Amino acid sequence: MMTEYYAPTDVMLGKDAVSMCGEMLARNKAGKVLIHYGSERVVRNGLIGQITRQLDEKGIGYVLLGGAQPNPRLSLVRKGIALGREENVDFLLAVGGGSAIDSAKAMAYGLYDEGDVWDFYTGARKPSGSFPLGVVLTLAATGSEMSDSSVITNEDGGLKRGCNSNFCRPRFALLDPTLTYSVPPYQTSCGTADIMMHTLERYFHPSATLDLTDKLSIALLRSVIENGQKALQDPEDYDARANLMWASSLSHNGLMQVGNGNRGDWACHQMEHELSGMYDVAHGAGLTAIWGSWARHVYMEDSERFAVLGEELFGLKRTSDPDRDALQAIKAMEACFTSIHMPITLKELGVDPTDEEIDELAEKATFFGKRTIGSFQILDKEDIVAIYTAARG
Amino acid sequence: MMTEYYAPTDVMLGKDAVSMCGEMLARNKAGKVLIHYGSERVVRNGLIGQITRQLDEKGIGYVLLGGAQPNPRLSLVRKGIALGREENVDFLLAVGGGSAIDSAKAMAYGLYDEGDVWDFYTGARKPSGSFPLGVVLTLAATGSEMSDSSVITNEDGGLKRGCNSNFCRPRFALLDPTLTYSVPPYQTSCGTADIMMHTLERYFHPSATLDLTDKLSIALLRSVIENGQKALQDPEDYDARANLMWASSLSHNGLMQVGNGNRGDWACHQMEHELSGMYDVAHGAGLTAIWGSWARHVYMEDSERFAVLGEELFGLKRTSDPDRDALQAIKAMEACFTSIHMPITLKELGVDPTDEEIDELAEKATFFGKRTIGSFQILDKEDIVAIYTAARG
Repeated sequence: MMTEYYAPTDVMLGKDAVSMCGEMLARNKAGKVLIHYGSERVVRNGLIGQITRQLDEKGIGYVLLGGAQPNPRLSLVRKGIALGREENVDFLLAVGGGSAIDSAKAMAYGLYDEGDVWDFYTGARKPSGSFPLGVVLTLAATGSEMSDSSVITNEDGGLKRGCNSNFCRPRFALLDPTLTYSVPPYQTSCGTADIMMHTLERYFHPSATLDLTDKLSIALLRSVIENGQKALQDPEDYDARANLMWASSLSHNGLMQVGNGNRGDWACHQMEHELSGMYDVAHGAGLTAIWGSWARHVYMEDSERFAVLGEELFGLKRTSDPDRDALQAIKAMEACFTSIHMPITLKELGVDPTDEEIDELAEKATFFGKRTIGSFQILDKEDIVAIYTAARG
Repeated sequence: MMTEYYAPTDVMLGKDAVSMCGEMLARNKAGKVLIHYGSERVVRNGLIGQITRQLDEKGIGYVLLGGAQPNPRLSLVRKGIALGREENVDFLLAVGGGSAIDSAKAMAYGLYDEGDVWDFYTGARKPSGSFPLGVVLTLAATGSEMSDSSVITNEDGGLKRGCNSNFCRPRFALLDPTLTYSVPPYQTSCGTADIMMHTLERYFHPSATLDLTDKLSIALLRSVIENGQKALQDPEDYDARANLMWASSLSHNGLMQVGNGNRGDWACHQMEHELSGMYDVAHGAGLTAIWGSWARHVYMEDSERFAVLGEELFGLKRTSDPDRDALQAIKAMEACFTSIHMPITLKELGVDPTDEEIDELAEKATFFGKRTIGSFQILDKEDIVAIYTAARG
């Protein structure tokens, strides 16, 4: 099976990374930039000012648009596209975490195209290009700063949908770990969980993989677990923050899927998208709340793969029974989520869906009967209902 | 310290990778291509024909130039530049291993520039651009398929010099592991050693590094050692060849130096360049013949770093004495080189330099007194003489 690895984002990692912003925009021939961010904190703390001063120096124009929020909204994307057209911008700069980046990516698609941008998220049309964009990262989590992916929520129906294409891979990403010092503990945990899950979704796939990719994945997971715990203990631990930030990029830029034909499982992500579409929960927390139930539902497909993870990542002793080893590995992973204060059930997540709601979640996850999800094990609506139900806790 | 990670090469890895050649050239808007290769084997075995048929189908012109050899020569580079000008090519395609790629990179610099291409290798001038190039890889070794580096030998004086810039990073690289089935055992060993050394040169640097980078480096080294041994046992082990091929790219594309300010040590490479410039030995073998002597000369700078490598990579038990642990780690690495039939002394390499020759090697390595080499420990001529001398065996 052929794999493409294409991660052309020019990454600067270090304390002075943001000082490269004007230079990187100039290199990319930006004329006028739509700077998109989330909370007004980045204005108040001077980050936006630090960026706009560099643009002024380089003679690059800009217009500001804030307001991106977790599970970024289609309405704001449309607003950004209209603003970008009105102001004749030719480049987008996302300042923030995955929400600002995904929202900016959607604007970048929309500005390139005449039609309805939501089409790219429903799958009705495929993007044929995008405006160029760059990133100043303030949160280690989604890996959107190097990825080909963006996820948008349509408030009309609470649908959360993703669009993947190489067009939206950022031209550059500036990673200053000190910008994440102020990330609160819960968000730090959610980010750590998200990075882990991006790696796990790729680790669990049905086709034979490269030994090298497996080893890199497990090395990354080990580093993320250790440094997530360190960042929770000391939010200003530079090395911990730097490791998490770089891990967020590597877990989602394609490196961890080389050799598996560009596929992963992604069932947990798709089930979580429906959860956060309906209940607006934090993405990382939604993922860990489901993972164990997903894993127990599917591990018999290839218990050896779970068992190896338990051995290599957690040092679990192998027995003669791979099924038993797999269950031990799942337990160890859940203990690991707990150690970074992430939920392992819906109850711990603070969500208590009725049977009807679970049916609705599953219905949405199958695009109303139009698709199955997962690849490690292919899941239909019945499986999905069973997993959500088991995840109640 | 700020690190840049920029590896924009679009990589296709798999048995059908070469079938993407016409498509990738078309995507990159190639009009006429200089196809540069090494031995005529790639013509006889049909690989060149497979490529040119695709170009014909896409209506892309081409001209062929073979003859690249290990330690690729400046004279052939000049010939390629003249041919490229004459034929009005706008794209270069290297078909082969590091020699063909490095030679094509030098042509790509030369075609872009009016002046003498050798200036970029002596450091007299810095490149300001390069013609675009792509790669069809037939050897897992140098990692030039994703790297910013090329090394050329000037027959006039036997000088081997490198030039690094992002301009020469290939636009695409097609990696079909089956193309390396026919690589003879000695070349397989040399390639494995080269991949290991690209990783080790980056692991040993003086600035604090990212834990994640260390973990990824050790994961890669472990995979390379295991798969190098497997490929020697069974040259047609697809998975082993695929792991080695991908490891060659990752060991030299910058991933293994993130967090160390884009630096590594590189003393062994610089000392080996003089060896192969004078004796025309295989690069990988030249590196392993020196490494142990280099390591024993410098380990006291940071014996802990060697000790950790011994523990994590070879499972060596730590003692209370990091110096002793470091020496054990060096021994284990040498045993590992021996296990893949690589020399650990100059004698085993088949080179027996006189004192005068060692003086000349050291003189050249310092650019005739104009530089020191290394960063883990900075080495002057005296150090270099001591290391070459200790390496005699």
